[in-house]
Order: sequence, then structure tokens, then C-alpha cells
Amino acid sequence: MNFCSHCGTPVELRIPEGDHLPRYVCPTCGTIHYQNPKVVVGSIPQWEDRILLCKRAIEPRHGLWTLPAGFMENEETTIEGALRETMEEAGARVEVIDLHTMFNLPHVNQVYVMFRANLLDLDFGPGPESLEVALYDEKDIPWNEIAFPVIEQTMRLFFEDRRRGTFGIHTGDIIRHLLPNNERRYETRMLKRR
Amino acid sequence: MNFCSHCGTPVELRIPEGDHLPRYVCPTCGTIHYQNPKVVVGSIPQWEDRILLCKRAIEPRHGLWTLPAGFMENEETTIEGALRETMEEAGARVEVIDLHTMFNLPHVNQVYVMFRANLLDLDFGPGPESLEVALYDEKDIPWNEIAFPVIEQTMRLFFEDRRRGTFGIHTGDIIRHLLPNNERRYETRMLKRR
Repeated sequence: MNFCSHCGTPVELRIPEGDHLPRYVCPTCGTIHYQNPKVVVGSIPQWEDRILLCKRAIEPRHGLWTLPAGFMENEETTIEGALRETMEEAGARVEVIDLHTMFNLPHVNQVYVMFRANLLDLDFGPGPESLEVALYDEKDIPWNEIAFPVIEQTMRLFFEDRRRGTFGIHTGDIIRHLLPNNERRYETRMLKRR
Repeated sequence: MNFCSHCGTPVELRIPEGDHLPRYVCPTCGTIHYQNPKVVVGSIPQWEDRILLCKRAIEPRHGLWTLPAGFMENEETTIEGALRETMEEAGARVEVIDLHTMFNLPHVNQVYVMFRANLLDLDFGPGPESLEVALYDEKDIPWNEIAFPVIEQTMRLFFEDRRRGTFGIHTGDIIRHLLPNNERRYETRMLKRR
């Protein structure tokens, strides 16, 4: 951020009075430009024993597989956003069963909210952001070609719950570690209920 | 939004190619300025049979009671944000038990994420945004002086669960209706698990 989006003056980075974090502040009109995490909403569409995955047609992670999900928009609810993204990316109509996971990704300032859902029919197909959409049995999931660690964790929790015969609602964090060789390692930390 | 925060040029409101919603777009540098919902995080701090409420020292709803909660910041998790807000507003140290509610407020583009928590000691007191902080038994809650409908609903679900002896994780929407006489009525719609 370089300029005030309200009046066009160059902004200053400073801690406003009574605040504790540096913010972009406009010295002319006084507007404080807060920057906050974004919510990503999506679904795990199930049909009998299989779940629906999308092969990404866009960067990042072009060509890798993911669950239908995307940024929540203003004026919609998390479920409305999940249904919209599922239609946009997979052309799929679903009904939400329940919340499944809420994952924090503090390294990219995102909160992932994923719902379990029933696919309502088999009339689906790739939207402009997908190359391919397909139903997968657990044993056929391309685990080495999953686009994002949060999506891999979401699916693993789903299949664990299904094997146990009871579905939970899971809260956790995906923490990115930068290794000395510049590789990235992702650690999953689940909230343990007290 | 009037100006591009990146280059300072006046922005245009239009639907970018491949998109479906109007966005503020910069005609000079091409930056698309997305606007998305914000996450509000907070806690229900409990001590034996009582919960901790804060009397607001700021607008909106100055002088009314609320649970400690506020906007999630970049680079933190939902739980870290809930602990921070609980300390800032109530001077209270808590440990999180579990997620309690996730409420959408589409009329203000907010998602409220509230955690049940144990108060760790009785060494609490009002921060700069609170006039007073106090522990309340259910029967003494000032129901007619609660700052926000989402906080009232969150507390009602908490006490219902406690009476039943088992705590759930609740997902729902608070929908604002504007009546012909310009009054506002708030409707709560909970997700029914399938």
C-alpha cells in the first residue's frame, strides 16, 4: 500500500494512537487502512464412497488437484460462498451437511472453512479455473499431486472420520517453516479439546 | 474506495475479465482491489458457573455488554486473536476449550468465530475499550443490555448446551431485516446438520 484509497495522498506506516500494530495511515484525511486475514470457503463433495476433486487450470499449483474452494465474498455467508465456489470450479450442485474444518494459515493470512457436502447429481464438469473434475475413491486420491497442504489435511481428516464412523468439526493451524536450504515444510497443529 | 492504493490513480468500478462481480480496478497499473469479509474472534471465558462480560467504552453500543472479541489480525491464528482480544478488552488470561460458534453477518461482511475458554485466574479488569468487566451467572445476564445480536445468540447457545450437559459447535447466520418503519430486526438461521 502506497496511497490512501480514500483521498489519494501517500500513506505513512505508523502505530495509531491507542493501537498496538503499525498501520497504513493517511496524513491528510486520517483514514486508517486496516489489513486483515481473508476467508477461503469450500466443500468436500461426496457421492457414495467418492469425493470430487478439481485439477487446477490456474496458478498457483497449475495442474495439481484440490477441493473446490475460493475467497469468500462480501455480502455472502460461508455456506453460500462454498456452494458458489463448488459450482464455479466444478460445475457441481451440492447440499451442505456440516462444517468439517477451520484451518488458520497465518503465513498467508487466510482462514480455510471447509464443509462436508452431498453431491446432488452427476452433472458436473470443469469451470474456467479447472482442467478436469473427477470423483475419487480414497485409495485412488493422487496424494502426491495435491495443490495445498491444507487441502491434504482436510481430506485426511475426512477419511479418518469416515473410517471411525463419526464426523467431527476440526480446528487447527497449518504452520509454514522455512528450512535453511530454502525448502518449505508445513506442520499441522490441531486444537485438542480440553 | 476512490484511488488505487498501489499507484494513486482514480479507480474504476467494473467487472474484470473472467470475474462475475464489480471490483475497483486501476486503469493505470491494472491492480484489482478485492474487498472481502473480516473475521471477528473472541471467547466465552468461564469461571465455575459464571462467564465474563465487558461493558463497552467505545462506539458502537457504548455502555452495553459484550463478550471479549475483535478483528482478527494478519499473521495470527483465530485462537491467538481470541486470546489477544480477551486480554486487551478484559485483562483476562484464558485457555481455549473448543470452538463454540461460527456466525456469518453478511449485512456487515463479518464472520464471528467464538471459542469456549477457561478463565485461568481472577486477576482481570477493563482495558481501554471497556468500562467494566464482570462475571455473571446465567440468571443475572443483562439480556436487554447486550451490545450485539450475535453475542446474545452465542451466549444463549452456550447456556442451552450447558443445561443439556454437552457442548456442540454451532454454525449459523444472523440476517438483518430492515422493516418499513426503519427498525431493524435480526433473524438467526442455524445450520441443521444433515
